[in-house]
Amino acid sequence: MQRHRLVVIGAGFGGLFAIKALRRAPVDITLINGTAYHLFQPLLYQMATGILSEGEIAPPIREVLRRQKNVDVRLGWATSVDTANKIVSVSGPGIEYQVEYDTLIVAAGAAQSYFGNDQFADHAPGMKNIDDALELRARIFGAFEIADLQTDPDDVARWLTFVVVGAGPTGTEMAGQIAELAHRTLPGQYRHIDPHQARIILVDAVGAVLNTFGDHLSTRALRQLHLMGVEVELNTKVVGMDATGIEVETERGHERIPSMTKVWAAGVAAPPLARQIAEVTGAKTDRAGRIHVSPDLTVPGHPEIFVLGDMMNLNDEHGVQLPGVAQVAIQGGRYAARQVKRRLDGQPPDKPFKYFDKGSLATISRFSAVASVGKLRLSGFPAWVIWVAVHLFYLVGFKNRVTAVLHWAVSFLGRGRSERVATVQQAFARRAIREYGDPFTRALDDR
Amino acid sequence: MQRHRLVVIGAGFGGLFAIKALRRAPVDITLINGTAYHLFQPLLYQMATGILSEGEIAPPIREVLRRQKNVDVRLGWATSVDTANKIVSVSGPGIEYQVEYDTLIVAAGAAQSYFGNDQFADHAPGMKNIDDALELRARIFGAFEIADLQTDPDDVARWLTFVVVGAGPTGTEMAGQIAELAHRTLPGQYRHIDPHQARIILVDAVGAVLNTFGDHLSTRALRQLHLMGVEVELNTKVVGMDATGIEVETERGHERIPSMTKVWAAGVAAPPLARQIAEVTGAKTDRAGRIHVSPDLTVPGHPEIFVLGDMMNLNDEHGVQLPGVAQVAIQGGRYAARQVKRRLDGQPPDKPFKYFDKGSLATISRFSAVASVGKLRLSGFPAWVIWVAVHLFYLVGFKNRVTAVLHWAVSFLGRGRSERVATVQQAFARRAIREYGDPFTRALDDR
Repeated sequence: MQRHRLVVIGAGFGGLFAIKALRRAPVDITLINGTAYHLFQPLLYQMATGILSEGEIAPPIREVLRRQKNVDVRLGWATSVDTANKIVSVSGPGIEYQVEYDTLIVAAGAAQSYFGNDQFADHAPGMKNIDDALELRARIFGAFEIADLQTDPDDVARWLTFVVVGAGPTGTEMAGQIAELAHRTLPGQYRHIDPHQARIILVDAVGAVLNTFGDHLSTRALRQLHLMGVEVELNTKVVGMDATGIEVETERGHERIPSMTKVWAAGVAAPPLARQIAEVTGAKTDRAGRIHVSPDLTVPGHPEIFVLGDMMNLNDEHGVQLPGVAQVAIQGGRYAARQVKRRLDGQPPDKPFKYFDKGSLATISRFSAVASVGKLRLSGFPAWVIWVAVHLFYLVGFKNRVTAVLHWAVSFLGRGRSERVATVQQAFARRAIREYGDPFTRALDDR
Repeated sequence: MQRHRLVVIGAGFGGLFAIKALRRAPVDITLINGTAYHLFQPLLYQMATGILSEGEIAPPIREVLRRQKNVDVRLGWATSVDTANKIVSVSGPGIEYQVEYDTLIVAAGAAQSYFGNDQFADHAPGMKNIDDALELRARIFGAFEIADLQTDPDDVARWLTFVVVGAGPTGTEMAGQIAELAHRTLPGQYRHIDPHQARIILVDAVGAVLNTFGDHLSTRALRQLHLMGVEVELNTKVVGMDATGIEVETERGHERIPSMTKVWAAGVAAPPLARQIAEVTGAKTDRAGRIHVSPDLTVPGHPEIFVLGDMMNLNDEHGVQLPGVAQVAIQGGRYAARQVKRRLDGQPPDKPFKYFDKGSLATISRFSAVASVGKLRLSGFPAWVIWVAVHLFYLVGFKNRVTAVLHWAVSFLGRGRSERVATVQQAFARRAIREYGDPFTRALDDR
């Protein structure tokens, strides 16, 4: 008799923890992922700002799962699910293939949303995947290089102005790190500019940074950002963007900020797969395209299909929507795995999924973080110690933990940022100033 | 009175060691480089095969020179030298600029040469810069992923056949590492292919591997390669190449090897700047475009212009042309710096440049290398220990030394290769099988 076939779409936190929880279960697992690596998103901002390498935050899936015998890893993008025949269609490099399932776990994550302004994407890369983070790394460090070559003070100012859109954990951490670059790492390394002159502007449409952390921590974070030289513009909406600047509506009215380097850390959009699944199953989706799931994380009417993590929309017991954070995906993955095991054992279904909020963490500068755990609110150095411990715990691979600590020692105790390589492929010149009109850029494209 | 102005083109071994040797000299140095990092080329093959990250072998120039006050680092490509007015023209991202010099050191390195077949470049990336190494990393690891998805045995074989062209140190080390991947790192990680089935073929038109190391070591290296499962085709010329294979003329006649992944580690070509300098100065160049320099490393008739490293053509005292290796560039850089200092002190010129051959090193597999130092020939583990020591010594940055050792422990004692990230930008699918014709690839381009 054939073993139960579980197909998992997505090798992020949700998919990976579901698979690991089933390592001894009598199932044949097929994991489908668009890349060969598992991305540790919480530290992506450190890769974008030169502290960590890609390898440290993106271990190969096959190495993560090398001891698990019941999983088959296949590269490819799941394009559609045929729920009647229980078949997933996948597009892979050079091949199209299909995989049959008895149970399906969909954990494909979410992308940034530009709120209908997709044309912003070229000017303000997101912070959801390695390609974007590499592009941003090239742009951020490249901006200082290019500023150093400018003779017109307006050009210098434009290249030394950085705008981060979105004051959640990702945007706040990015703004903090760019400020560290400007005020701690790079000063003294340039002969024609003073990196201290850089402006780092953090923008959000809501009225607080780290809005979901509560008033107390939000206020402390805002103070820390100010101490670091970050300008925070709240209640500010982005209404336009081009290669050389960004247009905002603030409380003061319409403003244009000349800035070559913009980071988009706002908004969320479920992948097209979510829409396709919702269409064939009749499930409802929210404004971001996330699928409204039943309390047991399955698609209504389809107990064999779980949707987890950033792709799902589910409220906690207070009616508050669960956030798109790692713990929600991890616990969802483990819950789905438990349900699969119970079904294989012929047991009745478990209680509904109950999210255990282990707290929120965000670090803004070295030795200073904010942590919210239950009713406990911590900030400053104690919170930073917890931040280090938690991230080390979840970072995959002993070697990665050691090199991460080493890199942190270099960047936080010392002033080094060694992982700053920007390839010619990603040369800022090509992407950001293509519209700026530059013969050298065109020559680059022809090389 | 204005200080002596030294302009250095190129931040490789030649330029960097010249600059460091002048850190206390009364000169104003301008360093012009196309990227913001110094590339440690001898370990580029380890980045291409997943052992080291880019940051470990490409430290930022500004961090390397952060303590040196008399140097100004400027991003850009030197396009031409006006020797009459002593002006270097530079194209930078978004700007064109010129730099005046009293003394000029040209150390811009060399690129791969495809011997007139530039169309091979898309199919067989070189091993001279980070962009190429990243592309190769994506292709090598991607090949195993894609092979695992194939159903036709011929397709599997094509994706699991790797051809390295050029059996000098670079090609030999690459072939050895790919063999390690196939026979040590990856087995057990795939469900549909057996990585042991991979073929690694090392090709060269000459009759020996590591030709310049002498018969004894060449023979030992050949034996080590065979032990590792590398097929070595000597006296073999590459006569054609396309996306899916490579055409060679061997002693047996014409053959086509179906292979998706090719590495070009052969040939050398000086950059266009060399041709321009030769034209305006009347200097002679060799077939690879390298400039024939005087015994004091200057351009004949232009004592104020030094040409070093891979760009120069100079014979040693036996009439043998100096190879394009790191030590030649390093010693040339230091020699040029000494001449500059002597001139500033009003001293007569030094003796002609004399290259002190500190030996040659190449490692083929873990714990096994070949070393040629003077009359001493070493192979196996003792040579490998020397290899480790030498590379650690020259690797810039304490942190890089520690993480490199850690990475080597992981890869050589353990079986891990963690630096395997291939971005979607570099997806093998886009570059190598574009001509293979694949709707998914075209879709990728449209994303």
